[in-house]
Amino acid sequence: MQKIAYVNGSFVPGEQAMVPVTDRGFLFGDGIYEVTSVIDGRMVDNELHLARLQRSLGEIRIAMPAPLERIREIQHELIRVNDLSEGMVYIQVTRGAAERDFVFPAADVAPSLVMFTQQKNLVGAPSGVKGLKVMTFPDLRWTRRDIKSVNLLAQVIAKQAAAEAGCNEAWMLDGEMVTEGGSSTAYILTANDTIVTRPRSTMTLSGCTCAALQTLIVERGLKLEERPFSLAEAKAAKEAFATSATTLVAAVVEIDGEAIGDGKPGPVATELRRLYVERARAS
Amino acid sequence: MQKIAYVNGSFVPGEQAMVPVTDRGFLFGDGIYEVTSVIDGRMVDNELHLARLQRSLGEIRIAMPAPLERIREIQHELIRVNDLSEGMVYIQVTRGAAERDFVFPAADVAPSLVMFTQQKNLVGAPSGVKGLKVMTFPDLRWTRRDIKSVNLLAQVIAKQAAAEAGCNEAWMLDGEMVTEGGSSTAYILTANDTIVTRPRSTMTLSGCTCAALQTLIVERGLKLEERPFSLAEAKAAKEAFATSATTLVAAVVEIDGEAIGDGKPGPVATELRRLYVERARAS
Repeated sequence: MQKIAYVNGSFVPGEQAMVPVTDRGFLFGDGIYEVTSVIDGRMVDNELHLARLQRSLGEIRIAMPAPLERIREIQHELIRVNDLSEGMVYIQVTRGAAERDFVFPAADVAPSLVMFTQQKNLVGAPSGVKGLKVMTFPDLRWTRRDIKSVNLLAQVIAKQAAAEAGCNEAWMLDGEMVTEGGSSTAYILTANDTIVTRPRSTMTLSGCTCAALQTLIVERGLKLEERPFSLAEAKAAKEAFATSATTLVAAVVEIDGEAIGDGKPGPVATELRRLYVERARAS
Repeated sequence: MQKIAYVNGSFVPGEQAMVPVTDRGFLFGDGIYEVTSVIDGRMVDNELHLARLQRSLGEIRIAMPAPLERIREIQHELIRVNDLSEGMVYIQVTRGAAERDFVFPAADVAPSLVMFTQQKNLVGAPSGVKGLKVMTFPDLRWTRRDIKSVNLLAQVIAKQAAAEAGCNEAWMLDGEMVTEGGSSTAYILTANDTIVTRPRSTMTLSGCTCAALQTLIVERGLKLEERPFSLAEAKAAKEAFATSATTLVAAVVEIDGEAIGDGKPGPVATELRRLYVERARAS
């Protein structure tokens, strides 16, 4: 977290960014979050993230904590006061602080809005440039993976296991099928040069970077097929890659210790990363 | 929350009970909780709750935030300073506050320990005395339901739906089978006077009140069978009931609007509630 954060109406020094222990985000994970990347001091695909924030909040019936215009203003203000050139803006909205009870609190309990920034090397990140090593892990998550909630323990466990194996990301498995990464969308490039990724459903989170990339894929005349793919298909693929707000587009060079292609970032993933960053810088 | 709470080493007035927004409990639901009921100023089955706390923390590799003796002392001190006669003591342990990253923080990041009390009518609670109305709801949860984590959004959604239907609890369904209540263990009494509840597995949380009740069931010479049961079987049962730290033992008088038995608390559930409270008061 950078030096100034935003908590429920106030810009505060990071060390004073606190929430009551009765905040339902803390007690129940009863909240939604979004991460928007910042490159050259500007947000990337922010409107997609704000739209998904609204959708997720609607799915669990948390009111918007402020008008979208105000949230945008706070994002810009945080980037400015923290002098953020590259990194991310984090937004978390919860159902507010109230006496502990599973049932929703009274209508006059206001949702909480917490926002902060983190400095992070995105474009030059070694894992992005050299490619990601991926470990597979069972997908332990609940059935509403389309909601970007802070119930993230399954992802924490998967990504920790991957990190301990020297990997950068976990690809979660539903049986033999890849659902998605612990915090990214998963893709493969098949032998006939088709990019494959899962279609939207409640089985995965609909990626904002994924949506933005699909436009680039279509513009470049590349073939795209939306369907589930298996771990075996991924291991035999020409290329594999991942997208997320902070990963941008990154080649996957290894899955469970087996090299994908020649074990180096493939030309399609490399080109898509270049195009995505170019578009972000130009926006 | 009563007037004095405990947060990371200090007893503080409730309104000052805060955690950093970077606490992993808030950002990832990366924490474990327990609720111990208090009757006549004394904790009920507390050693079972503390043992389950340790087990859950071990499963997700969070260190104990303090020795058990110290946690017990804080529980007693909170009951004393808040002059709590009936209600509950809440404990939450998280992986601590650290720069946001899914992967576990450095080993020197201390886990957070938050504790507070709530006053609540338990023994005379109308829903406990008159019996619970239950609504069924799909079990949306993850696959490690044996871990008592604060990833509770599925339970919040189920219990809110039940409350909106005028019910006191949600029984969650895995297909046609009842897993458990949103925050309680589920039981039926079959036509041949056998009490049925699910065996321990990763499919449900192993209930502390359930464990304590099983001793009473055996002592009273009642038959107990640990196996899953279906919604149809529950609706046709002689009796149904639920246990939890704060529900104690409560008859279920209605499921999805259909009366169980004659729609009044059955004799077995009523007797078990009486015995459980008697034992709690005598302990």
